[in-house]
This record gives sequence, C-alpha cells and structure tokens, in this order.
Amino acid sequence: MPNTAHPPTAPVLDTAYAQQLQCGRQWRGFLNALGQEFSAALPAQDVALLMARIGVRFASQNPLAASDTIEGLQAAMNAVWGPLDWGRVDIAQTPAGMDIRHRFCPLAAAFGTSQADWAVGFLQGAYQQWFDSAGAGGLKVQPVTGLDSLGSAQLRLGAA
Amino acid sequence: MPNTAHPPTAPVLDTAYAQQLQCGRQWRGFLNALGQEFSAALPAQDVALLMARIGVRFASQNPLAASDTIEGLQAAMNAVWGPLDWGRVDIAQTPAGMDIRHRFCPLAAAFGTSQADWAVGFLQGAYQQWFDSAGAGGLKVQPVTGLDSLGSAQLRLGAA
Amino acid sequence: MPNTAHPPTAPVLDTAYAQQLQCGRQWRGFLNALGQEFSAALPAQDVALLMARIGVRFASQNPLAASDTIEGLQAAMNAVWGPLDWGRVDIAQTPAGMDIRHRFCPLAAAFGTSQADWAVGFLQGAYQQWFDSAGAGGLKVQPVTGLDSLGSAQLRLGAA
Amino acid sequence: MPNTAHPPTAPVLDTAYAQQLQCGRQWRGFLNALGQEFSAALPAQDVALLMARIGVRFASQNPLAASDTIEGLQAAMNAVWGPLDWGRVDIAQTPAGMDIRHRFCPLAAAFGTSQADWAVGFLQGAYQQWFDSAGAGGLKVQPVTGLDSLGSAQLRLGAA
Repeated sequence: MPNTAHPPTAPVLDTAYAQQLQCGRQWRGFLNALGQEFSAALPAQDVALLMARIGVRFASQNPLAASDTIEGLQAAMNAVWGPLDWGRVDIAQTPAGMDIRHRFCPLAAAFGTSQADWAVGFLQGAYQQWFDSAGAGGLKVQPVTGLDSLGSAQLRLGAA
Repeated sequence: MPNTAHPPTAPVLDTAYAQQLQCGRQWRGFLNALGQEFSAALPAQDVALLMARIGVRFASQNPLAASDTIEGLQAAMNAVWGPLDWGRVDIAQTPAGMDIRHRFCPLAAAFGTSQADWAVGFLQGAYQQWFDSAGAGGLKVQPVTGLDSLGSAQLRLGAA
Repeated sequence: MPNTAHPPTAPVLDTAYAQQLQCGRQWRGFLNALGQEFSAALPAQDVALLMARIGVRFASQNPLAASDTIEGLQAAMNAVWGPLDWGRVDIAQTPAGMDIRHRFCPLAAAFGTSQADWAVGFLQGAYQQWFDSAGAGGLKVQPVTGLDSLGSAQLRLGAA
Repeated sequence: MPNTAHPPTAPVLDTAYAQQLQCGRQWRGFLNALGQEFSAALPAQDVALLMARIGVRFASQNPLAASDTIEGLQAAMNAVWGPLDWGRVDIAQTPAGMDIRHRFCPLAAAFGTSQADWAVGFLQGAYQQWFDSAGAGGLKVQPVTGLDSLGSAQLRLGAA
C-alpha cells in the first residue's frame, strides 16, 4: 500500500444518489413524465384522490396476513413493502390516534418534486384499505405530512 | 454424474414468466393498480391520449443523438430503450410510410390485460416527439396494433 | 385506426432477450467476467465444488419454513426463490429418488456459456442444505443435467 | 389536514437502507455467500488478485469511448458505471499521480463486511485496464483505501 495522501473519511451519504437508487431505473423516466403530466393537467387535490384510489386497489391486491397485535400488523405491512423495496413503516398507538410513519417510499424518487402535494395519497389509500380490512371501522387515515425527498411521510388513523 | 433418467430437453420458454420479468418487481403492483384505475375511470380513448402526452414528455426528456440515416435513428432510439430494459425497435421505410415495430415494451407486463386498448398510446407519443424533433414535419404516428402480452406493437409514421 | 398492413401476430418469444432479462443489468457484466475467470483458472469440477459451498451458505442463510409435506417443502423453497426472481422449482417423489426441477435460475444468464459444467453446483449445494435441514439424513443431491441457456436444470436426491 | 403533532423534519438518511439499495435484491444473497466463501477459503491478498483479474476482464468487455482529456476520460468511465448503478468516479491529476475516487460501488453492499480487504481489487483491475488502454504505459493503479460501507474507495495511478 502506498502512503495515504488523504486520511480515510467516514462514509458520506449522498441524498441525491440515495434518492435515485430508491426508484428502479426502468421506471424512473416513465413515472417522472407521468407525474409531470398529472401535475400539469389536474389540481393536486384531484391527483391525491386518484392516488388514494390506486392505493386502495394496491392494498386489496396485497392483503395482510392476519394479526392480533399492532406489532403483528406492522410486520405484516412490512412483509409487503420490504420485498418490493418500498421502504418500511412504523405504527404506534398515540392519544391522537394511530401514528403511521413510512420511510423510503420510492414514489418521491419516481415523481420528483412534482409530487409534493399528492403522492402521499397513495399511502393514505393503501393504509386506509389495510386498516379497514383489519377492522378499524369508521376511522380515517389522513396525511400529517407530504412525502419528503427521501420518501418519508407521516399519516394518522383517527376519527374522521 | 448418475445415469440420466430424462434426456436433456431443449430450453423451453414460458410466456408468463418472461412477461413477469419484463416489469421490475418494485413497480408491478403499483402500475397494475394504476392501470386498473385508469381503465375503470376513463374511456380507453382518453387514457390513450393521456399516455400519448406522457410519451411526448418522456421523449422530450430523452432526446435522440443526431442522425442522418434511418439506421442511425433506430440506433439512437435503441440507445434510449436498451439501458432501461424497455425492449427494442426496428424502423423501416415502406410505401405506406415509416414502419415502427417495438418489441418487449414493459408496459404490457406492467398494466396487464387492462391496457389492451390504450398503453400503445405511450409509444405513439414518444415516437411522434422523436420524429418531430428529427424533422418529420406534419407526419403523424399512428398505432397499427395494440401492445400484445409480450409488449410488442406496430406503429406507422405517415400522412395524417 | 388506419388499415392494418400486417395482421396481428401471436406474441413471439425471443430466447436471447428473455435470457438477458433473467439477470439484472447491475450484475451482468461483473458476473460474466467472474464466470470467465473461474472457467479460465480452475477445472470445472473445482468450480462446481466452490459453487456448491456457496449454495450451502446461501441456503443456510435462507432457511425454509417448516413443512410436513412435499408440497409444503416445494412452496417453502419457492417462497425463497420467487421474490428474488430466481425462477421456481418443482419437486416430486419418484422410484429413483426425489426429482428436483428448477426453472429460470438466473445463473445461466449471469455466467453465460462459460458456466455449462459448473453453475448447477450452486443449486446442488442449496438443495442439499435444505434437504439436510428437513431431515433427509444421508441422501445426496446430484445434478442430472447442467443448466440450460434459460436456467433450467434437473437434480435428484437419492442414495449417495 | 389535521393538526400536525410533529413538525416536519429534514429528510433523514439511513446508511443501512441506502447500502441495501445499492445492491439489487436478486444478487444480494448469492454475492454475500460468495464473499463469505472467498474470505473463508483464501487469504485476502489472493482474493484481491482474483478480483483484479475479474476487473480487468470487465473493463476489457466495457471499453471506453476515446478521449483526449481527463474530463473526457472521467465522463467515459461514468458512462459505463452510471447505467449499471455502479456509482461514479472522479479523477484528478495530482503531484502524487492520478487520484481516482470512486463512490457508491455496489460491491460493498454485495459482499458486506467480509470484503473489507479485497473487494477494492476489482476497481484496481478495472481502472488499470482502462488506463492501460488509454496509454498510461507502465503506470500502476494501487488502492489508497479499501471500500467503505457505502462503496467509496480511493485509488491512485502512479509509478509502480
């Protein structure tokens, strides 16, 4: 080994590169163009509703394994998200309702900045459908934040 | 090696498995749900128009290297499609116009049977944009067939 | 729709393209070079043994869900292979032993023609480890065929 | 929107998740087992040499576009790495030789901690082959650091 001109540095994360990796190369261009078209053609509220309907369909086609506990429900959700490289979720009961924190959802990387106000609708629809199926009758999932650039968002299940 | 109970057989293709591989696992579920939602909510003609606008955007964001020949134009198009695992295209001048044959477009695998009448719109928009940029002033790309289950379709550039 | 110059044709599979899709683009070049280096540096028998040891490690790190039946064992194996896009396996009891038929293993696409005599060693090691863990004491997995170009191979579990 | 219980936070990177995404799911388990087998069976120096030979083969099969400048050479290298999701490289002339800094090489994610002393050998071989082809007669590429957990390493081209 030659002398080291630069001391070894701690691994440095690169947000832009990490974001890019979150969305597989095959669909980056298509989804980016689709997101731009949605943002140009429709009000954000309408796209959010469309996304929610897509999320409901997705969750219906990916039903959760039965579970009696919050830990089990969270594990069942992550057993869907994980193998798809869709990040992961933490859920926790709080006084204000069920707190839902999803990290590393690839929709942010896919749609880019055009999605700021509507992509979280997909998660809203998916979690609504899963909680409905788990028997959360009448409670509603609402976003607390949008998706940030790394695909994290917070939602809450509570009284409508 | 033990005795062979079965003689080696010629490799057997499996259309369903090959189709599945065409669309990366990360986006299969999302795109399938999106396609179903489009098909349920809008007439096929409207979805085809939406797809065409997305295709125009995609091609604008993926401009072709300059080329003076049909062979060069085809190579420039395949230099976009290839690294994305979006199949490949053959173009040829015919008396009826420019014949465009795309094979293995992953939209068929992504959207499944719901897409039969509209997914080819994306290719229509993308090729229209690319031919416009190459100076095919006034000529129009029209689909001759829809996308079959393996993502092949035929289109034609000609007088509108 | 304009008149159709060519009647729609049945979807046509393309073995070379289907093979290419079996191995993700990120690792195609690396694994191809690795396979060539192995083939150049070592006798095929030694590479097959190395592959078998790698297969044993892989299966140890991907243990199967418990199962009492052959159907259950096959389902547990496919629950490992499926989400990795590693094809699928059919197992069946026969007078000559347990017949193991794996289809669409991506090692053939990864290593190309250099792998003809040794890549099946990975499957041999993996199935050996899984059958050992399932209690197939003393029986040995042996390849009946190598991996063909689409990643299919036959193996058999029987008396050594 | 309901009241926000938690103020929006800045996007938080997660090194472990970012590392996992660097290596496509299809090959994570295979490459991890392969790396463990190499580390168990051979001295790190021998594995590094094997990796270097694989790197030479890879670079030979992915020749660079011709270039007269360092900027052009760097762009040609990144035109190989980029579409494969193999990170990127910066090269710069320094008094001590050509400084080569590669970031986000997926070998670290693929091989995990087992690779600390040898995986950089692949980059050494690849850059050696590319610089040889570009006419860097007699100069040698040597690693200055190993690959860190996010796939960054520094190498240098200089007098042997």
